[in-house]
Amino acid sequence: MSLLVTGSIGIDTIKTPHGVSERCLGGSSIYFSMAASFFAPVRFVGVVGDDCPFDLAEVFKGRDVDLRGLEVRSGSKTFVWHGTYQENMNDRTTDYVELNVLQEAPPKLPDVFLDSRFVFLANTAPALQLELLDQIAQPAFVAADTMNLWIDGHLGDLKKLLKRIDCLIINDDEARQLSGRSNLVKAAADVLAMGMKVVIVKKGESGSLMCSADGQTFLLPAYPAAEVVDPTGAGDSFAGGFLGHVAQQGRTDFEALKSALAYGTVVASFTIADFSLSGLTGTSRSEIDARLEELRRFTSF
Amino acid sequence: MSLLVTGSIGIDTIKTPHGVSERCLGGSSIYFSMAASFFAPVRFVGVVGDDCPFDLAEVFKGRDVDLRGLEVRSGSKTFVWHGTYQENMNDRTTDYVELNVLQEAPPKLPDVFLDSRFVFLANTAPALQLELLDQIAQPAFVAADTMNLWIDGHLGDLKKLLKRIDCLIINDDEARQLSGRSNLVKAAADVLAMGMKVVIVKKGESGSLMCSADGQTFLLPAYPAAEVVDPTGAGDSFAGGFLGHVAQQGRTDFEALKSALAYGTVVASFTIADFSLSGLTGTSRSEIDARLEELRRFTSF
Repeated sequence: MSLLVTGSIGIDTIKTPHGVSERCLGGSSIYFSMAASFFAPVRFVGVVGDDCPFDLAEVFKGRDVDLRGLEVRSGSKTFVWHGTYQENMNDRTTDYVELNVLQEAPPKLPDVFLDSRFVFLANTAPALQLELLDQIAQPAFVAADTMNLWIDGHLGDLKKLLKRIDCLIINDDEARQLSGRSNLVKAAADVLAMGMKVVIVKKGESGSLMCSADGQTFLLPAYPAAEVVDPTGAGDSFAGGFLGHVAQQGRTDFEALKSALAYGTVVASFTIADFSLSGLTGTSRSEIDARLEELRRFTSF
Repeated sequence: MSLLVTGSIGIDTIKTPHGVSERCLGGSSIYFSMAASFFAPVRFVGVVGDDCPFDLAEVFKGRDVDLRGLEVRSGSKTFVWHGTYQENMNDRTTDYVELNVLQEAPPKLPDVFLDSRFVFLANTAPALQLELLDQIAQPAFVAADTMNLWIDGHLGDLKKLLKRIDCLIINDDEARQLSGRSNLVKAAADVLAMGMKVVIVKKGESGSLMCSADGQTFLLPAYPAAEVVDPTGAGDSFAGGFLGHVAQQGRTDFEALKSALAYGTVVASFTIADFSLSGLTGTSRSEIDARLEELRRFTSF
């Protein structure tokens, strides 16, 4: 079933203990789409400036990613991000950022996308996420991401958004910040009470926790990656694998969401094994399936 | 089958955000034995001074814990520990410690314990752990704990010990310190290469990782505890639940160790729900079994 994503497209420069990748393709909608395309057709919405050095049609060639929602805005400049990861690969610093086109008007959703059933609203101002969501006629399952900046400064808008979506995907620090609770189980419960049906809390190398408003819980360790080269895009790939599999199944019961979460975890493990998109573009659905079975074996008792 | 534990007995004073517990019973062999006694008969070895305010026969009344290895040493003083946990319940500081009888000669193993098949050597100087192990005639499965102090200052003795045991149970920081690796998957592999068959890495609220020398892996999240009152003894309860179940099964194949690890995880979740031993003494085998099934449901997909 149709899966729509709205998010950023960036020119990333990434330093990790494994090396440097200069001016490579990044951004939430890019990682999400590449990850989701292993499972379901993706409708891509995003905007770049006319300085963008990447040919996205070439990037997604052979994958079912509909780029009719890509806008190349004349006279604008593409989003730029420079980041450095520390030795432990968990802590990162932003060295440099140019929001550029991301602080202008958002891209328009093409009319042909307005009947999308599954939607991912990547991290941006919650007012914008709401505006985008308002345009979708009859969404079946809407997931969103957010970050500390919006929890701090735009909590009113964020709380409106949380009443409108089905699933929030955030990291552990964000869950603690949003709930004011240090215990993650309590934090998840408090976040759920803000209105959505399901919350997914990402804990990096410690895996993830999914809780539903009807009292169900799922705990999944991360895939045990011996080699982490570049964690950039792990969260968006996780969301892409998750929603891609949900859209492929066309089911949103808790059992379906559990399998989808496992796929998200596995897809993210491929992302972090190389710089930029190389980890994802270098794998296949059959490798993903094989690693999913490995993860099932590693976690069953 | 017979399970022997050697470790400390302490007079603990514990401060957590939930309150203070003054001069309560603690120590590794105490938590281990209470946890293991849900599964198998325990042979207890430890030493206190004649100032010890606790009647251990009363503490373990109704449980199959053989106290013939308990020495009350005349003229000596019992081990004392004061600790404070921070708000996040992960960081703790030692406010005060008196090693007392723990820095004297170790307790003697009673002759009737020398045929023990399953053995846990709780954290102490590795030379002492080796001396204790040398006395056991034909152990089937020996597990040990250690800490930063011995990795730093007694690495030679520790490496001798690691070649003699079957299973090392350590936390994530200790695994990183012992291996010099920041990635836990690589750290576990390097620790395994030091000689034991199985390494278990405890990650606190993030669960645990078990790897075997023959290439098997098991990942288990922690039980999602909404209320953590006092984390003291969680690690020794985990080890007690694990080895207790191993001894009960009498099997050490990887599938048996996986189930045992899940029992260790569940038993530790009861320990941390109250001060000192109250979390453990307030539960039952049937509650433990029910929570194990809950954990299985929470983690299967």
